[in-house]
Amino acid sequence: MKQSIMFKNKPIVRSWASVAGKKESEGPLGAYFDVTTDDDMYSGKNWEQAESRMQTEAVKKAIAKCGISYNEIGGIVAGDLLGQLMATSFGISQMQFPFLGVYGACSTMGESMAVASMIVSAGFSDNVVAMTSSHFATAEKQFRFPLGYGNQRPLSATTTVTGSGAVIISSKEETETGIPIYIEGVTIGKIEDYGVKDANNMGAAMAPAAFSVIMANIRENEILASDYDCIITGDLGVVGGRILNDMLLHAGVDITDRYMDCGVEIYNLNSQDAHSGGSGCGCSAITLCGLILGRLKSGEWKKVLFVPTGALLSTVSLHEGNTIPAIAHAIILKGGE
Amino acid sequence: MKQSIMFKNKPIVRSWASVAGKKESEGPLGAYFDVTTDDDMYSGKNWEQAESRMQTEAVKKAIAKCGISYNEIGGIVAGDLLGQLMATSFGISQMQFPFLGVYGACSTMGESMAVASMIVSAGFSDNVVAMTSSHFATAEKQFRFPLGYGNQRPLSATTTVTGSGAVIISSKEETETGIPIYIEGVTIGKIEDYGVKDANNMGAAMAPAAFSVIMANIRENEILASDYDCIITGDLGVVGGRILNDMLLHAGVDITDRYMDCGVEIYNLNSQDAHSGGSGCGCSAITLCGLILGRLKSGEWKKVLFVPTGALLSTVSLHEGNTIPAIAHAIILKGGE
Repeated sequence: MKQSIMFKNKPIVRSWASVAGKKESEGPLGAYFDVTTDDDMYSGKNWEQAESRMQTEAVKKAIAKCGISYNEIGGIVAGDLLGQLMATSFGISQMQFPFLGVYGACSTMGESMAVASMIVSAGFSDNVVAMTSSHFATAEKQFRFPLGYGNQRPLSATTTVTGSGAVIISSKEETETGIPIYIEGVTIGKIEDYGVKDANNMGAAMAPAAFSVIMANIRENEILASDYDCIITGDLGVVGGRILNDMLLHAGVDITDRYMDCGVEIYNLNSQDAHSGGSGCGCSAITLCGLILGRLKSGEWKKVLFVPTGALLSTVSLHEGNTIPAIAHAIILKGGE
Repeated sequence: MKQSIMFKNKPIVRSWASVAGKKESEGPLGAYFDVTTDDDMYSGKNWEQAESRMQTEAVKKAIAKCGISYNEIGGIVAGDLLGQLMATSFGISQMQFPFLGVYGACSTMGESMAVASMIVSAGFSDNVVAMTSSHFATAEKQFRFPLGYGNQRPLSATTTVTGSGAVIISSKEETETGIPIYIEGVTIGKIEDYGVKDANNMGAAMAPAAFSVIMANIRENEILASDYDCIITGDLGVVGGRILNDMLLHAGVDITDRYMDCGVEIYNLNSQDAHSGGSGCGCSAITLCGLILGRLKSGEWKKVLFVPTGALLSTVSLHEGNTIPAIAHAIILKGGE
């Protein structure tokens, strides 16, 4: 039961775009985003519509950046955190692309990229969009308390990122955009459930899933952790990141000198009141479509492992006393030689 | 923007299994299901757990029927109707397969089979499970009213099927199970939204999506509707099925003599108080893993188009006054010569 697929025909990340909310724009990565806004309603009637609009904008921007026509897009693989992927259904319906809806909680960018890469590598399509989003207010309403309650959260809790990221995964580099970025392979995650029940400590729930998929990636492909310039988790935050590194050290794998978590990078944790860090599908998506792909393009990084992490919780399962299963998928991204 | 993929390496449906609830077992298809139960709690603590347990049973049964080991399964593509795919997270976590969560509402069996077929056809894995489920009580709780309210439903409403269906999609026929059933190709659906807002008339919301994907399948692959022995929608019910056939007739395509809807077949509409018919991911899944694959295996049908249909609604989107976007995916299934 091998989890990893190393591509013979390596798809490329042809272009990408990110749309970020107010708090994210004010954070340390603010300068990396394509579109920033100080209106978390994004001129919409409600938060869900705002999230959908950010998705539309991210996809349109990514398509515009590589200069292909809508007709050249073979499909879109996308999802979000909301019940029944509501942000996505309305975010992409006008574009009329063949659509595969995916759900992996905050690991969704990893899942959508894995599926899109497989489709492109196999030659089923030349250009597939992978996209996801999250929104602080839609997520709080979905999973926790209405914002109006002013509910307090413990320091282990993370802050759902408002934003959307989209990449165009393609069979060939048509444009002159410098160093092509290849997707060398993917490692599909398994559900890990260590019994954590605290929805305000998703980092702890997700760390075992990140551990499991990173170990599978290294073991199955005979890669050393040191072959990666950086191993980047999605949204473990301060608490989950520490747990992941402890687990890896116990297994004899030290990534402490090349580890990054999008949730930790995206906010200034000292001044932005983000507690353990950022989370949500949008967290890893906009960090990818800003900082990470930017560094691969510039050559600052040659090869990274991008590991979006997801906590598979719902309010129903929590109310029924269940644990929080988690999953993570790993994408091997390679820049120039 | 071609929606169809015709496979050069055609994957086979190596085995399949269905688990059906009480009402479904008492319906016209009762004899086709592998496992039937008169306990809609499936010995679980709550309905969600019952749905998860049906999933586990369906997958285990499908694996047992083709006699392969768990270790030979490369992954599972699965989902359900509940927010954050809750039935699936708990239904499959113990099996520790690489997991891709998908959501297409009641079209999920089509989506999971499409993704699994692409993975197998491309040679990324030799055996991938596609699975989905629904449960009347979890769906009513998720989308409508708690059952205890005894809420009445109009005649255009459908009845969510309790059950789970799983297929093993494989690269080769290893076992002597008679005529192999090939997946010749898939047509990935686009979101269609004709403005229907009535959650008690999902057939009307979904008919345009079925129309769109059937037309794309016929047009792109230069197939005649008459090349199929049967064109089978997932859960349009009586109302939606009529709309679909009207739309097709207007477009010059007559499938009335070879049309079937799983939602219409699964209950005795005169005596089982199911209103417009069955619905839910489980509706097309258990009809596939009972009647449809059985008829292909026996040679009664040579070639069919399986078109699960999904209404992408959520309570949040409905409360906000939104329409019900819909999607359908088409799978070309071919039995012996």
